[in-house]
Amino acid sequence: MSNTKAYAAFNNKDDLKPHDINRREPGADDVQIDILYCGVCHSDIHVAHDDWGMTVYPVVPGHEIIGRVKAVGADVKNFKTGDLVGVGCMVDSCRQCDPCQADLEQHCEQGMVMTYGSEDPHHEGEMTHGGYSTQIVVDQDFVLRVSEDLDTKAVAPLLCAGITTYSPLRQWNVKAGDKVGVIGLGGLGHMGVKLAAAMGAEVVMITTSPEKGADAKRLGASSVLVSKDEAAMEAHAGSFDFLLNTIPVAHNLDSYIPLLKMGKTMSLLGASQIDCHSLGLAFGRKVIAASLIGGIKETQEMLDFCAEHNIVSDVEMINMQDINNAYKRVMDNDVKYRFVIDMQSLKAV
Amino acid sequence: MSNTKAYAAFNNKDDLKPHDINRREPGADDVQIDILYCGVCHSDIHVAHDDWGMTVYPVVPGHEIIGRVKAVGADVKNFKTGDLVGVGCMVDSCRQCDPCQADLEQHCEQGMVMTYGSEDPHHEGEMTHGGYSTQIVVDQDFVLRVSEDLDTKAVAPLLCAGITTYSPLRQWNVKAGDKVGVIGLGGLGHMGVKLAAAMGAEVVMITTSPEKGADAKRLGASSVLVSKDEAAMEAHAGSFDFLLNTIPVAHNLDSYIPLLKMGKTMSLLGASQIDCHSLGLAFGRKVIAASLIGGIKETQEMLDFCAEHNIVSDVEMINMQDINNAYKRVMDNDVKYRFVIDMQSLKAV
Repeated sequence: MSNTKAYAAFNNKDDLKPHDINRREPGADDVQIDILYCGVCHSDIHVAHDDWGMTVYPVVPGHEIIGRVKAVGADVKNFKTGDLVGVGCMVDSCRQCDPCQADLEQHCEQGMVMTYGSEDPHHEGEMTHGGYSTQIVVDQDFVLRVSEDLDTKAVAPLLCAGITTYSPLRQWNVKAGDKVGVIGLGGLGHMGVKLAAAMGAEVVMITTSPEKGADAKRLGASSVLVSKDEAAMEAHAGSFDFLLNTIPVAHNLDSYIPLLKMGKTMSLLGASQIDCHSLGLAFGRKVIAASLIGGIKETQEMLDFCAEHNIVSDVEMINMQDINNAYKRVMDNDVKYRFVIDMQSLKAV
Repeated sequence: MSNTKAYAAFNNKDDLKPHDINRREPGADDVQIDILYCGVCHSDIHVAHDDWGMTVYPVVPGHEIIGRVKAVGADVKNFKTGDLVGVGCMVDSCRQCDPCQADLEQHCEQGMVMTYGSEDPHHEGEMTHGGYSTQIVVDQDFVLRVSEDLDTKAVAPLLCAGITTYSPLRQWNVKAGDKVGVIGLGGLGHMGVKLAAAMGAEVVMITTSPEKGADAKRLGASSVLVSKDEAAMEAHAGSFDFLLNTIPVAHNLDSYIPLLKMGKTMSLLGASQIDCHSLGLAFGRKVIAASLIGGIKETQEMLDFCAEHNIVSDVEMINMQDINNAYKRVMDNDVKYRFVIDMQSLKAV
């Protein structure tokens, strides 16, 4: 039995192809969602290509999902048919451990149930499948409310790129007047600039590519610091309240750490090897942290913040059938700044 | 004119040799100190050997100084002739910048004036000389009070090894009942164990050397975790409130970070290159920090804490003339846990 059209990776080297999957009938606590849009995250590519060695094929990627409620279970309280909703990187967690109790389900001690590629212990261990599909069924506690006032298709990337940058800005108490450096201008960086600027921070785009300056300013950066320019880096030494580091490849931190004020933090968002000399941290008590998406409560808070400040992602729309070319372009950093799949393209087939 | 016997390094390869230096006459704010004991810190060796490329020769090392007040200037308020006092790693700072105002003189924006090997801007830029000498003259604000109730010679290493481990334990709020891991059992590690245990923490010595276990327990550790034992490391995963990392050489952190509870910190005390994968920090929001000695106020607090808890360093006494052999043994990790020079040996020559 299958009831849902999807696109799946069947192995680590071939293109994604059409695939039919079966979604469960909505249970008492479930929300059935007709998917309108799904963003394309670099993680989707890592999983499709099995870069992290954990992929179970076939896998249907996609964890930046926007859709409308099609049906709800008997015990669903906060959603009704027709509501505009979102689903991010998680669809469940143990709900019992300390992190879950602290609204940090992404750090669940049993491991969060990811939106795709996870065994779902609450549903006989079946593998979850993501948003490259026409519909999804998700427990009400992991469904987000989405404002009707934003450009709906451009909301999709907020579910991963948005919360990934919002959460560390909140965790480290970025506030109006703070000087925040966003290192790297890609899918994460462009959201970091928008969100930090909306929080009232003075945002400096730190990049190796001076040609990105104009775009960074359009997104809300007040200035651009070219990290290869040693004199400019020296001029900014000791001046930053927070650094949001979105570099996705292995790198050394020694040139960035001196930018921080005493006692301040650089948060790492990329999944990468890093190295530095301890004395750079010791002089001035600098701190290195890292962040991983955000909990459901904070994701809702982020969506509400974006609605209030009219923030969405910069997106390029594609059809589901274009996904393999989109993957190539993401790997070439050739997107400003996020691909979003119009799922009508899959329904119409 | 010279008025003080000392031992100095004259270049980066020869033995330290006797050297006569001149100490200034005590000014209105100065305390003149007859040196009784001086600890031997690994930093002394790094500077003598110019490992950090900043040494100006000749240099008189030594920044773990204990002595008795010989004379005080007219405006000295809190010290009188005969008082037992200490001098640590700093003898002055700008006193105006935010860190100085926050009692963090070690992070002075103008650079602290180190006890040896620094230009002293308040005294015509002359180079400071350290405690491998018979007397020293220090501004009253950088002189510490020392209890008469402790074993005086074993107090000396508290001025560097003691404050270096005490400060991060306080900065990161280690409290009674916390589980604290001390990584590495040397001069710093042995003080970390004693101090954390005195704060009421459950201390685990984390070491590559199982044979250090008995000694770690004598110092106050409740158990020993051998870091090469993967099963044991796994059994302790997610259980530590704080890790004090004293490893002095380049190393990878990936095996240690999972030991931390969610949101908790590893503080680096060694001066070394470190590397890790960002995902180890991201999952569970772990934090890497580093620490650099401590401010004068906190150093006094540490000395008072040690007096209250009867904590001193484990020391092996040497004569000044034995210093070159002591350096060799420090480099071979052949000391439990700190050499202290009896300065009577230099005065008697």
